[in-house]
Amino acid sequence: MRPGDVIQTKRDRGVLSPEQIGAFVSAAARLDGSGWEKYHLTALLMAIYLNGMVPDETAALTAAMANSGKRLDLSDLDGPKVDKHSTGGVGDKTSLILGPLAAACGVVVPMMSGRGLGHSGGTLDKLEAIPGFRVNLSEAELRAALRKVGLGMIGQTADVAPADKMLYALRDVTSTVESIPLITASILSKKLSEDISGLVMDVKCGAGAFMKTREQGRALADSIVNVGTANGLRMSAFITTMDVPLGRYVGNGLEVIESIETLKGNGPPDLTDLSVTLAARMVRLAGIAPDDASAEKQVRGALTSGTGLEVLRRCIEQQGGDPGVIDDYARLPSTGAITAVTADRAGYVVSMNAEKVGVAVRLLGGGRDRAEDAIDPAVGVIVRAKPGEHVGTKHVVFEVHHRGGPRVGAALDLLKESFAIGGAPPGSEPLVLEQVT
Amino acid sequence: MRPGDVIQTKRDRGVLSPEQIGAFVSAAARLDGSGWEKYHLTALLMAIYLNGMVPDETAALTAAMANSGKRLDLSDLDGPKVDKHSTGGVGDKTSLILGPLAAACGVVVPMMSGRGLGHSGGTLDKLEAIPGFRVNLSEAELRAALRKVGLGMIGQTADVAPADKMLYALRDVTSTVESIPLITASILSKKLSEDISGLVMDVKCGAGAFMKTREQGRALADSIVNVGTANGLRMSAFITTMDVPLGRYVGNGLEVIESIETLKGNGPPDLTDLSVTLAARMVRLAGIAPDDASAEKQVRGALTSGTGLEVLRRCIEQQGGDPGVIDDYARLPSTGAITAVTADRAGYVVSMNAEKVGVAVRLLGGGRDRAEDAIDPAVGVIVRAKPGEHVGTKHVVFEVHHRGGPRVGAALDLLKESFAIGGAPPGSEPLVLEQVT
Repeated sequence: MRPGDVIQTKRDRGVLSPEQIGAFVSAAARLDGSGWEKYHLTALLMAIYLNGMVPDETAALTAAMANSGKRLDLSDLDGPKVDKHSTGGVGDKTSLILGPLAAACGVVVPMMSGRGLGHSGGTLDKLEAIPGFRVNLSEAELRAALRKVGLGMIGQTADVAPADKMLYALRDVTSTVESIPLITASILSKKLSEDISGLVMDVKCGAGAFMKTREQGRALADSIVNVGTANGLRMSAFITTMDVPLGRYVGNGLEVIESIETLKGNGPPDLTDLSVTLAARMVRLAGIAPDDASAEKQVRGALTSGTGLEVLRRCIEQQGGDPGVIDDYARLPSTGAITAVTADRAGYVVSMNAEKVGVAVRLLGGGRDRAEDAIDPAVGVIVRAKPGEHVGTKHVVFEVHHRGGPRVGAALDLLKESFAIGGAPPGSEPLVLEQVT
Repeated sequence: MRPGDVIQTKRDRGVLSPEQIGAFVSAAARLDGSGWEKYHLTALLMAIYLNGMVPDETAALTAAMANSGKRLDLSDLDGPKVDKHSTGGVGDKTSLILGPLAAACGVVVPMMSGRGLGHSGGTLDKLEAIPGFRVNLSEAELRAALRKVGLGMIGQTADVAPADKMLYALRDVTSTVESIPLITASILSKKLSEDISGLVMDVKCGAGAFMKTREQGRALADSIVNVGTANGLRMSAFITTMDVPLGRYVGNGLEVIESIETLKGNGPPDLTDLSVTLAARMVRLAGIAPDDASAEKQVRGALTSGTGLEVLRRCIEQQGGDPGVIDDYARLPSTGAITAVTADRAGYVVSMNAEKVGVAVRLLGGGRDRAEDAIDPAVGVIVRAKPGEHVGTKHVVFEVHHRGGPRVGAALDLLKESFAIGGAPPGSEPLVLEQVT
């Protein structure tokens, strides 16, 4: 099969056969003299970007990418295995909350996560703010964690979906990232490698998300649910707003604090409710509860009883971290320097741009410009006044935790620009816009 | 300027700036660590293929590609410099006829040609059928030929339009050849390198041509005329049919014979008329004749007086070839073995597929599967009965000049399939379908 013929099929809006997709994916996993070169891959990626894929093609692409590398076999572990994946947002620390809550309800959660890039954070970075926490578990260590704790939170190992690594790297430099079939296959190929039976997707849309509009979010959610189902997963997707930061804490160490507070029952309503909703759907997909109401009741129970917090404590311990952080936030890294961004007049916060807040945290050192950048777990922003809340003149809107340095000024400027004050509170939008099941 | 940003512009159907096009083309000419890799180039080529280019972009692309390499400076030579280019067909040997005719009328013709590929022939291969003929003249030798003969017929040197060489090689393997802006830039960048002031295009369309339909042919002709004009050339394009072979001789040595016969006044009407039409337009674009009628009169004069033939003789001599071939075709290579393909019933030849005839000649060894293949100048086909002509049972339709070997059977089968016999002569179509000026 010549690469040019495969490319031509998609160029002419044809449907790629499973064999054509297989040749493409195995070339991406191993450029081993099969006749495919990177320059064939990128021409095909652009043709896919512009001409799309039908669901059958995306399903075949996803399966081939998952099969391009190691797939866990967790069949020896008792219990239903379900995970959650979010397309990423600002202040989105739900994984640290719902993982423990779902596990407390009996779900086995083999969670493989990523790192933050650009303005959005990553679960691994947050976990690594906990002193000693190791995300690079061996398969045996993951298996032990799942058996003992019911939850393992790890990074993607090099042998998982190698085709995705190559294709993502090429998409990143050829402006072919924002393609629904390619995003679908990238996300689901890694999730299929976890040997889960169900997946809850949180598709974020809005100013702070990758998908800017609800329509884009719905298209991605539809695609992921279809393709996940075609690959044997029980699927649910929530389309949720990401216009303002989720919760009040943004920055890796700060988000650990807010996650722990939420598991203690002191979380902000938006973060608590979304975490409970997602965890409840995991419980339902796991077959532990027959409907949303009873699933939510179980999850709320794990929250109020403290069993969710207990799972987090044991998870931290199991993965080499200091569980003392749960009772003593001073054990988490902190900057020492805090600067306030205040309102210049009294009134209601009427809007807040999550992307600008995310970029500000990146400028402070809490995020990455490029994948190889190091990050500072201590820096971040606490949102003291969110949209709908009233502030007086000179009242604090943002509490900025920083280390000084040349980029702090730019971060502060961005934060000042990120919100507006008005005379009346804004209308409120629900966090969950719709579901796709 | 990051490659991804340039790619994104075209991905989103934007118009590339001259700076963006310049970065792309200079990367194609020299992949020298500018940040561009082949995989960026092919992603952009696919985006151009699918999203197109406006005329200004194609003009800028053409100029940048011409400027990526050596451009002749023939300003020291007196006389108007005009060339002709054909998109390629079967039996198309007009260059060997119109070059001498135009030169005989006072046009200076610095003709850089290509080799045949697939089913269509190339001028260089035909010229090299003449014993001793050298197409790889140095610039000084070309200059001498133009000064003394008014005509130089050479191959493209390595330093002409290197960006085109890289881009063509990448297009060939990524199914991005058939793009009007990319074809336009490829053709015209090389022609601009000849330092001509005018160009006559012969855009062939039909079964034996690259462009299968008249609409495609018109789109390419429009593009080439627009972009050539924007780059300072006086332009004319003819859209001509290529459903059946042009003339009767197909194959490199055989086409030299038919070209000489045509310059002697004995050519078939279709070949003679098209060669005169194209040469006359060259004469008009050169400013030697004020209108088509007087230009054609001059060209017909050069044909009947034998001054065209005389230019060909001097051209062959100047480029190291044996001018004796003009009077003695036995000096040209021949196969010795001739097989006839005959009509299996009496009637009119009602159709003939030029592409099949071209492929048959390739199978005989007269064309190339790949650019690096060697060819046999002696093999070929003489069409003894063209559409509209009457044949009796067992009358010869094709005279096949071959060397034996395993592919001759396939060639003969293809030739048998290539024509049909019917009870009445087919309607005739004009050779020149339309003009774009």
